[in-house]
Amino acid sequence: MIDFGVTILGSSSAVAAFGRRPSSQVVHYDQTRYLIDCGEGTVFRMSEYDIKVGSINQIFISHLHGDHYYGLMGIISTYNLNGRTEPLEIFGPDGIQDIIEMNFRYSKSTLRYPLTVHKIDPTIALKIFENDVIEVHNIPLRHGIPTTGYLFIEKSRTPKIIKEKILEYNIPVESIIDIKNGADFTNTDGQVISNTELTIPISTPRKYAYCSDTAYHEPILPMIEGVDLLYHESTYLSNEVDKANQYFHSTCTQAATIATKANVKKLLLGHFSSRYKSLDLMKEEAIEIFENVDVVEEGKTYIIV
Amino acid sequence: MIDFGVTILGSSSAVAAFGRRPSSQVVHYDQTRYLIDCGEGTVFRMSEYDIKVGSINQIFISHLHGDHYYGLMGIISTYNLNGRTEPLEIFGPDGIQDIIEMNFRYSKSTLRYPLTVHKIDPTIALKIFENDVIEVHNIPLRHGIPTTGYLFIEKSRTPKIIKEKILEYNIPVESIIDIKNGADFTNTDGQVISNTELTIPISTPRKYAYCSDTAYHEPILPMIEGVDLLYHESTYLSNEVDKANQYFHSTCTQAATIATKANVKKLLLGHFSSRYKSLDLMKEEAIEIFENVDVVEEGKTYIIV
Repeated sequence: MIDFGVTILGSSSAVAAFGRRPSSQVVHYDQTRYLIDCGEGTVFRMSEYDIKVGSINQIFISHLHGDHYYGLMGIISTYNLNGRTEPLEIFGPDGIQDIIEMNFRYSKSTLRYPLTVHKIDPTIALKIFENDVIEVHNIPLRHGIPTTGYLFIEKSRTPKIIKEKILEYNIPVESIIDIKNGADFTNTDGQVISNTELTIPISTPRKYAYCSDTAYHEPILPMIEGVDLLYHESTYLSNEVDKANQYFHSTCTQAATIATKANVKKLLLGHFSSRYKSLDLMKEEAIEIFENVDVVEEGKTYIIV
Repeated sequence: MIDFGVTILGSSSAVAAFGRRPSSQVVHYDQTRYLIDCGEGTVFRMSEYDIKVGSINQIFISHLHGDHYYGLMGIISTYNLNGRTEPLEIFGPDGIQDIIEMNFRYSKSTLRYPLTVHKIDPTIALKIFENDVIEVHNIPLRHGIPTTGYLFIEKSRTPKIIKEKILEYNIPVESIIDIKNGADFTNTDGQVISNTELTIPISTPRKYAYCSDTAYHEPILPMIEGVDLLYHESTYLSNEVDKANQYFHSTCTQAATIATKANVKKLLLGHFSSRYKSLDLMKEEAIEIFENVDVVEEGKTYIIV
């Protein structure tokens, strides 16, 4: 199975505390890497966790609260100074291009690699990116400013033919495309060999959803239905639900309720308030509602199976 | 003697490497604290080094290259979230106010404490700040964009009267101001007691100069003449003098030459290129020219005596 997972670089909410850092994470799929959010110090955290800084070609920003993007200029500048030539794409709400341009104008810096900023409309769910292996959709969230989550879906691949069967049934090259497209094979004796015998079945595409920052927001349910892994913000314990509502954040029990209603396979909680040193109670409260849940640890990689 | 010194938070040049972080340092004088430059992650470094983040009321930015200010929005936002009410002043070249305003506009944030940005003209040396204990002048430097160093001078204080002498000579309260201003004291018997016997003499005001980033630039010499402590950038070893000239940086031998010509008491080298893992050679080369020199260590406090 192709390696698919996410490494947490930062799990704190706006005020960093207890060694936890602002939001950032790296999704990996096979040999590709994608950065989601880029809080201050992201470029240093990547080095600390042995993630090659230059491995990123796409950065997805959820919204323009500082704890989600104050590290963006740092990574853009680091690439510039390291002699990067590969194109870089940044996806996120309106404002990113203006901020980059203003910083570069005052520093009289010239960007030495192609940088494209894709302005995302956080109110509409669209496929915003795809390459050969993965596609990314945005997920409209409910927060104080325009905010979008991101859904990573591995692409359906054509089934693989089992090599031994090619020899066993003496399958000619010209039949292979038909078999990959689902056809049975009829050999020269008229014997029909069923497609299922000849191919490795395609697994259901795995999905990873990132939902931060957001109030409890059921309209996201259809988009995250059945995902293999859901990262949902969990700024507060359930006794702070009023504060969560006031600031458009979620409690751990709200996050777990979303996970239950969306039938996700596993839930990761993150974006913790600086009022909580220990996160044990966060997990205890969530597990009452949704069993397969973890509070994220920075530096840890969560594999999507 | 009143405690006066500087704690190094970051000592790397533009690309952070070997655990060294971008430029930032905290000057302390008695109970007051001042931040000079604010590279990415400064707010985290302060916590790591047990420097109370809220202790800063003035921030001095040398120039708008990212490694000197990408942590500024983070510290401004942290104050906002921590419920700061004390005024904050930021000093630096043109652009800082625009950058702060743009970030706050997109994040729809409202600043909840008084923030004043003082635009410094990096081409003219002026006294730009003073309070009861210290004054700060800017030092025009030579770099690729408008850049200023900063000179911290402790204020001349009125001499203190030795308490025991008040009792010994039965000095009335109304004479104390005159004595502090230098007058001798004549007692009721007509005996004249000289001012020097009654007071603790004023020491020469101590000075700290921060010069980063800059090419070798002799016009700074009159401003830093005789300072107790000079922090001078030292991006390169002497064999990279062409690169230093090209990028308006200094070598360690150039920094040491400036220190010698300015008759400073002690030299600190900083702003090291990412090409140098060890800084031993940096110190060895500089010490040949100026003996009382150190390559700075992050987290270390250098006391000005």
